[in-house]
Amino acid sequence: MFKTSQSISKLIDELAKMPGIGPKSARRLAFYILKVSQDQALSLASAIKAVKEKVRHCSVCFNLTEENPCIICRNETRDSTTICVVEEPNDVLALEKIGEYRGHYHVLGGALSPLDGVGPDDLHIKELLDRLSQGVKEVILATNPNVEGEATALYLMKLIKPLKVRVTRVARGLPVGGDLEYADQATLTRALEDRIEL
Amino acid sequence: MFKTSQSISKLIDELAKMPGIGPKSARRLAFYILKVSQDQALSLASAIKAVKEKVRHCSVCFNLTEENPCIICRNETRDSTTICVVEEPNDVLALEKIGEYRGHYHVLGGALSPLDGVGPDDLHIKELLDRLSQGVKEVILATNPNVEGEATALYLMKLIKPLKVRVTRVARGLPVGGDLEYADQATLTRALEDRIEL
Repeated sequence: MFKTSQSISKLIDELAKMPGIGPKSARRLAFYILKVSQDQALSLASAIKAVKEKVRHCSVCFNLTEENPCIICRNETRDSTTICVVEEPNDVLALEKIGEYRGHYHVLGGALSPLDGVGPDDLHIKELLDRLSQGVKEVILATNPNVEGEATALYLMKLIKPLKVRVTRVARGLPVGGDLEYADQATLTRALEDRIEL
Repeated sequence: MFKTSQSISKLIDELAKMPGIGPKSARRLAFYILKVSQDQALSLASAIKAVKEKVRHCSVCFNLTEENPCIICRNETRDSTTICVVEEPNDVLALEKIGEYRGHYHVLGGALSPLDGVGPDDLHIKELLDRLSQGVKEVILATNPNVEGEATALYLMKLIKPLKVRVTRVARGLPVGGDLEYADQATLTRALEDRIEL
C-alpha cells in the first residue's frame, strides 16, 4: 500500500492499536492531529506522557491515582465499613459518576478467566481479604455481569462468607429505559428469577 | 463529576476533542493508555510529536509530506499531464490505496463553503491554475459528492474550461455492492441521470 509519509503511517499504526479504533478511524484521527495546531497536538502527546509518569495504583484499593492512598481511601466522610469490589479502575469512575455510593472500593485488576490464564493470584484478592479484618461490614460484588465476572463474584462470595461479613451482588435485570421485547434471553430469565415483592 | 486524577481527566479531555471520539470512548482509550506498557504509550506520544515536527505540505500539490516536493510529485513514472483535484490529504491516501490512478494530485485544503467563511482565496486554487500552464491535459475534479464539494467542482470547472484543458468530474451513482432499495433519493436520481450506454 502507498504510504504518504513514514511518520504519518507510524502514527496511524500506533492509533490503530487502541481498542475500537480500526484502520479507517486511525487514519481520520491521524489527519485530525495533522490538522490541529502544534500546541493542541503536543498537549495530547504530553497528556499521554503525564498519565504514564504520574498515575499509580493506590496501595489500599488499587484504583488509579496520583496520590497514595487515593482520594477515596483518604476521604473520612465516606463509609469505610462498606467495600464495593470492581474489576477495573474505569468501573470506579462509572460508579462515582452516579454519585450515590458513599463507601470504599477495591479494584481487582480483572476477573477470573482460566482460558486467559488469569487465576486468583493474578487479582488483588489477598489484599481484599486483608482489608476485611478492619471492621468491614459489607462487601458489594460489582464485577461485570458476564461469565468471568459471575465466576469471580462466586469465588469471592465463598471466600468472604465464612468471615461473617455480609456479601451482596449488584442486581441484574432489565436495563432501565430498555425494551422488554429487545432484552436477551439471559437477562430476561434473570429479571424473572430476581423479581421483587411490591 | 468525580475525577479520579487530574492527569487522567486531562487525558480524557484531550482525547475527547478528536473527531468521532465521545466521552465514553475517550475514557476507554485513556484507560487503555494507562494499561499498556510505558514504552507503548510513549511511542504513541512520540508518533504524535513526530508528525507535527516532520510533516509539511508539498509546495507543488499541497499533499502532506516529509520531503518537498512529495514522493508523488517527484515520481517521473507518473503522468504529469493529468491532475486529480481533491479536498484533503486523506483523499489522496484513499485514491492511492486503490492503486489505479497514475497521474498527479492537487490538494485544495477544503471546499468552498460561504457559511463557514471559506472562499476561493482560502483554498489552493491559484496554485492549481499556475500548474495548468505546464502541459496539463486533464483535470479530474474529485471533490466530495456533497453540497460544498459540488459547488467547488462547478467553480473550478468554470475557471479551467476557458484554458482549453479537459475537465472531468468523478462519477456519482449507486455505490458498488450497495442495494438500490437503500440508496437515498439524490443518489438514485444521479444514477438515473448519468446512466451509460451498454
